[in-house]
Amino acid sequence: MDIAILGYGTVGVGTVNVVTRNREIIADDSGEVLRVKAILDLKDFPGDPYEEKIVHNFEDILNDPTIEVVAETMGGLHPAFEYISQLLEAGKSVVTSNKDLVAAYGEELLEIAAKHHVDFFYEASVGGGIPIMRMINECMIQERLQEIMAILNGTTNYILTEMEEEGTSFEEALEDAQEMGYAELHPESDVEGMDAARKLAILSTHSYSVDVDWEQIERRGITKITQEDMAVAKAIDHHIKLIARSRMNGSRLFAGVEPMLLPEEHKLAQVEGVYNSIMIKGNCLDDITVQGKGAGSLPTGSAVAADIVMAAINKKDGVTSTTYHEYKKIKPESYSSLGQSYMLRTDGKVPMPQEGIISAIQIENIYAYFTKQMKSQELRDLIQQLEIRGIQVLNCLAMEQEDTGANR
Amino acid sequence: MDIAILGYGTVGVGTVNVVTRNREIIADDSGEVLRVKAILDLKDFPGDPYEEKIVHNFEDILNDPTIEVVAETMGGLHPAFEYISQLLEAGKSVVTSNKDLVAAYGEELLEIAAKHHVDFFYEASVGGGIPIMRMINECMIQERLQEIMAILNGTTNYILTEMEEEGTSFEEALEDAQEMGYAELHPESDVEGMDAARKLAILSTHSYSVDVDWEQIERRGITKITQEDMAVAKAIDHHIKLIARSRMNGSRLFAGVEPMLLPEEHKLAQVEGVYNSIMIKGNCLDDITVQGKGAGSLPTGSAVAADIVMAAINKKDGVTSTTYHEYKKIKPESYSSLGQSYMLRTDGKVPMPQEGIISAIQIENIYAYFTKQMKSQELRDLIQQLEIRGIQVLNCLAMEQEDTGANR
Repeated sequence: MDIAILGYGTVGVGTVNVVTRNREIIADDSGEVLRVKAILDLKDFPGDPYEEKIVHNFEDILNDPTIEVVAETMGGLHPAFEYISQLLEAGKSVVTSNKDLVAAYGEELLEIAAKHHVDFFYEASVGGGIPIMRMINECMIQERLQEIMAILNGTTNYILTEMEEEGTSFEEALEDAQEMGYAELHPESDVEGMDAARKLAILSTHSYSVDVDWEQIERRGITKITQEDMAVAKAIDHHIKLIARSRMNGSRLFAGVEPMLLPEEHKLAQVEGVYNSIMIKGNCLDDITVQGKGAGSLPTGSAVAADIVMAAINKKDGVTSTTYHEYKKIKPESYSSLGQSYMLRTDGKVPMPQEGIISAIQIENIYAYFTKQMKSQELRDLIQQLEIRGIQVLNCLAMEQEDTGANR
Repeated sequence: MDIAILGYGTVGVGTVNVVTRNREIIADDSGEVLRVKAILDLKDFPGDPYEEKIVHNFEDILNDPTIEVVAETMGGLHPAFEYISQLLEAGKSVVTSNKDLVAAYGEELLEIAAKHHVDFFYEASVGGGIPIMRMINECMIQERLQEIMAILNGTTNYILTEMEEEGTSFEEALEDAQEMGYAELHPESDVEGMDAARKLAILSTHSYSVDVDWEQIERRGITKITQEDMAVAKAIDHHIKLIARSRMNGSRLFAGVEPMLLPEEHKLAQVEGVYNSIMIKGNCLDDITVQGKGAGSLPTGSAVAADIVMAAINKKDGVTSTTYHEYKKIKPESYSSLGQSYMLRTDGKVPMPQEGIISAIQIENIYAYFTKQMKSQELRDLIQQLEIRGIQVLNCLAMEQEDTGANR
């Protein structure tokens, strides 16, 4: 079967590598020999083993009737959306690693795919190499999914791990990550939590069968995390992680992305470097946690290749797995409206007792206070009371205390 | 669609509960409303909500043309094998949680299913609620799988966790586990590693496309683990876990089940209680680790229900996902022939230097020595040399030292 790739960047190259390297085993498993017939890119790649396959004109792929499955790995919203729409309408199945696109236009593209009886898959858009979309859609079809708690952004996880292990500042760790190629030159989408919010919206939409707009998910990034916060975390055997989570409570959805303090024994506390990890909870199955490489050319390319193979098998069998449901739009509420406990780091000693604060720790001139479970208004009141008493709150981090069934 | 259950024990009850509780969401996701039409059991269940569905005669299910999918949750080899064969031959799809059966007759049953164009699934036979079979067969179809390292037996993991956290002896922890219903009255299959070896054989067969006989897998159980071993583990920040692992090196398969010392930061070191965890490594994807409840009525019932739903969707679409391949039989070699390092606990102090030993630790009258990487003959020689010097080795545990990509 002939396939094509749109975009010969990191993920595109990884996809071609996986499909080539594992051609034989894919043929054994699926009954289909996959041939990369064309790769769309603006540039030429002289000397590249796939040099001959590079095309500069999208129509060469769109109008080639032998190409049955196309992988979009170019990124960005436009022209990716227009290209994919046309390919689906032309009866080709499309798979993508483009999370921005899926978060913005996923539902539209699913609708077009279902209408034209082709597949539209996007495994690689969330969790890199982790097969989380297929797990949700095929392995947990019998479950009422209720909760997601995840590390979905490898860049911020790498930065936080660096800060924790090397004692570097956020700025230094970010520079390191940029040098290593783990962070982009304009890292806002990662460090401000937008990337994690997009992925959380995609996961939540499919887990709970509701339409979640990523821009409505409350988020805080990691730019304000300091070595003082790391020192407090270490002193109480916790780790600071950028956590994306959502919970379906009846007809209410709670969702958020924020840096949190997780106790040592929490499953997500031990996830280091560029790994992603996703805990998902069903009403019968309880919790399942999957961990794997959240980025990288080969792991992400492998997830794209998985989609290509499944789409190819479906093409061969004359079936599709893609369905479109018009889900009800739901506005996510903030976790702070549910109530949680916090670590408040202050610029000075708070005279005790202070209502709402249940414990404290001082490390040299670092002062940290731990609150009882409280909702957002109570938290605002507490911070204001401290201000009245002459104490400024320098940073405020949510804490995970409940046992989410993590390690027991 | 009508379904039936064979065996109304722990897993059978769980399966009925999941199918009933999630009937609506299953119908939304799959387009099929599942009705439990008959439950085969020797006993009656007066007062049970499904009392009316209990039948005592297998033929009532076999000869009922409206029953299209049957779940076998009765356990044991016979008559489970004969029942399932007849059901498959009668054109019904069958799913099972019975690992003994799958380890012994899995290939035969797959062949019968493929011949009669029906499905034979066994997700629940490995890893309880963890969807590992579907992950291997559908989510990693693009990968050349190379390595498995896993905690596959919840009973022994519970016992080891108890011994570590409560300081109890193996015998006391086993009694506790029996009281809690986590261990059977005759626990040999669990504590001697047979259960883990069966599951490892099933996983390895499907991961590497070779025919692995579980009885040929070298195994050691946990009955000889003592509080002295736990004290050594604690002193060096390790945990003792019953590890099932296999590795495909070219055309050679290495496989084994044995208690091992894992460093704190190893992904499997933190898995506690009745959880199972499976790390699987592919040639492009790198490592993926899945953790979840390895036992229990609802988690295991949920895995059975997943299979029922997938078989029902296939029935509706007139397709099957079950294929049969006659895999080449392969004799697994022992990990000790690959070379690994060991902790030797002895009855007295070993005068240094001693060839092969690179470090030592003494805790009161507990003496432990750590070897360099060595193969089995070297290890035997070392133990013999110590005996000549008047030192008995009381226990010998393999250590995991390499970075398996666990947490980085």
